[in-house]
Parts: sequence; structure tokens; C-alpha cells
Amino acid sequence: MTRLYEDLIIDIPDYPEPGVVFKDVTPVFADARAFAGVIDDLAEHFIGYGVTKVLGAEARGFMVGSAVAYRLGAGFVPARKPGKLPRKVVSQSYALEYGTDSLEIHADALEPGDVVLIIDDLVATGGTAVAMAKLAESQGAKLAGMGFFLELDFLNPREAIAKDVDVEVFSLVHVK
Amino acid sequence: MTRLYEDLIIDIPDYPEPGVVFKDVTPVFADARAFAGVIDDLAEHFIGYGVTKVLGAEARGFMVGSAVAYRLGAGFVPARKPGKLPRKVVSQSYALEYGTDSLEIHADALEPGDVVLIIDDLVATGGTAVAMAKLAESQGAKLAGMGFFLELDFLNPREAIAKDVDVEVFSLVHVK
Repeated sequence: MTRLYEDLIIDIPDYPEPGVVFKDVTPVFADARAFAGVIDDLAEHFIGYGVTKVLGAEARGFMVGSAVAYRLGAGFVPARKPGKLPRKVVSQSYALEYGTDSLEIHADALEPGDVVLIIDDLVATGGTAVAMAKLAESQGAKLAGMGFFLELDFLNPREAIAKDVDVEVFSLVHVK
Repeated sequence: MTRLYEDLIIDIPDYPEPGVVFKDVTPVFADARAFAGVIDDLAEHFIGYGVTKVLGAEARGFMVGSAVAYRLGAGFVPARKPGKLPRKVVSQSYALEYGTDSLEIHADALEPGDVVLIIDDLVATGGTAVAMAKLAESQGAKLAGMGFFLELDFLNPREAIAKDVDVEVFSLVHVK
């Protein structure tokens, strides 16, 4: 289905800033056949890994992660922007181009014995993916892997991730 | 499964402000059996309605809506906070306790012929649900219905929704 996915992604030049080509994946998710394919292709790769929880990043990661969790028969845990979760959280910061941001999960959302699959729509520099991996490991959970719809190869996210975490990375579409 | 769902919801008194009891549904979604039940119970109610697209509200609506879309073999369309979508949008405002907010969808996300199921984790006053319904109708799409995990009956969302939209409302758990 890779060709269908690629045909549906819309390139937006100079968004959100000059020189950046934004990849709009929402038309892929709006297409029933493509959306089912994305969820099946991601989930089926990780069948047999014993995934108990899928961890997805706010907000587009929720769209892919929760459906992958459903397909795998796992629970879904949102990694949210600061201040969005109502109870006690654990937090992990990560670097942005300028400054830092952080992601939070509820302190009781993961536990030792959980096998966590990290899912996002897109991996660029790998910052949010590594933050999610550190959150999972901080709770004593094991990592099953990381799955992305779209990987921006030219930003070398695999190298960046490998510096911090020993984990399998699997993506459906690659941008060279 | 209603009893399991109710057991997993965590009440948080005086959050986000004094006198309000916040219903934290994240433990329901983190529980593999409960999450599968929520998605199946919502989706199976609307099987046979000819749903082509599920419309879900940022951000917790993405967690339920996308998995329901997958289960129904439909596409998923996010209704996002202003400024989050990169291309041409249509926008719909709705009232908050103080002031207004709005939701946006891409102008090409829905079209006449689409049969749209509106999904959110929770319906309180019905404001965001009505905004989503108006967005769908503004694009010439038909409404299949509205599905919620949790309905705050004491805020009378059904009455509020019925004032603006003629649509079936279905919820799994009710708070009297």
C-alpha cells in the first residue's frame, strides 16, 4: 500500500517556516482504505512482540496509536503536553530546534511487566520518540519497538534514536 | 462491560476548578480489555449506518474516534483547535462557560455523500459535538450519529444538542 500512502500525502512548502516542506498526512487517515492499511501494516509488524500498551504522542500520535492498540488488543496510553493530564505524572524533556519541550504520562499508566510499543505519525529528529522511550523505561517497562507512518530519512532519526535507546524502528513510508 | 468501565474511571474533585469533579477516562483506555470493549461497543452500535468518515475532536476524541473509524472501515477526520491544520480550513465556533472557542477541519476533508459519525470521549454541554455536526453539515455531509464513551446527564447535553441538530446520540456510560 506504500504507493497509495505516498499519493495521498500532501507536501506544503515553506510551512510552518520558510525552507521546510511540511508533510500533511491527514488525507491518508481520511481515506478509509489507506487508514485501514496504515493501522494493519503497523500493527501486524508487531504481532508476536507481546505488546501490552501502546504509547502515542499528542496529538497526531493519538490518531495512529489508539487504532494500533485496538488492533493489537493492547491498552493505549497518551503521552501529553505539560499540564494536560489531571493526576500525578512523570515528565521527560526533549530538545527542539530552539529550546526544549516535554511529554508527560500518568505515573500509574505503565508498570514493570508492560511491553510498550511507541507509535507516532511521523519521526523527524526522533526527539519525541526518545522522550517516550525514556518515560517507558523510567517506569520499568520493556520496549517492544517504535512504529511510524512516515520517517524523514534525511534528518537521520534512526541514528539519533540509537544514541539513546536500543530499540527496533519500523516505518511504512520513507522520505529520502 | 459498563461496570468495568465505571470501575476504571477516576473521579478528581475540584479539577480543573473548585466544585467540578473531573472524570479521568485515561485508565479505561490504558486497560486492554476495557479499551477494546469501548471501541467495539461504540462501533458496533453504528454498524449498518453506512459510516464513511469518523469525525473526532482534539485531543481525547482522537483516541476513541480513530479506533472506531478503523473498526468500522471508515476514514478518520480530526476536528482540531485553531491553527493546527496546515491547509485551507472551515471553522465553527462554540460557546464556553466564559467566551468562545472553535474547531476546524480541512476544507476538503468531507464532501457530499459522506456519512459522518461524530465521536468524542465525553459529552458535557454538547458544545463541541454541535460544532462538529455543523462542520459536517456545512460540507454537505450527512450525519450518522454521535457516539460518546461518557455522557454527563446532569448537564443535559441531549437537550442542548437537539436544539441545533437532529441526530441520534449514543453513550456507553452515564453520569446522573
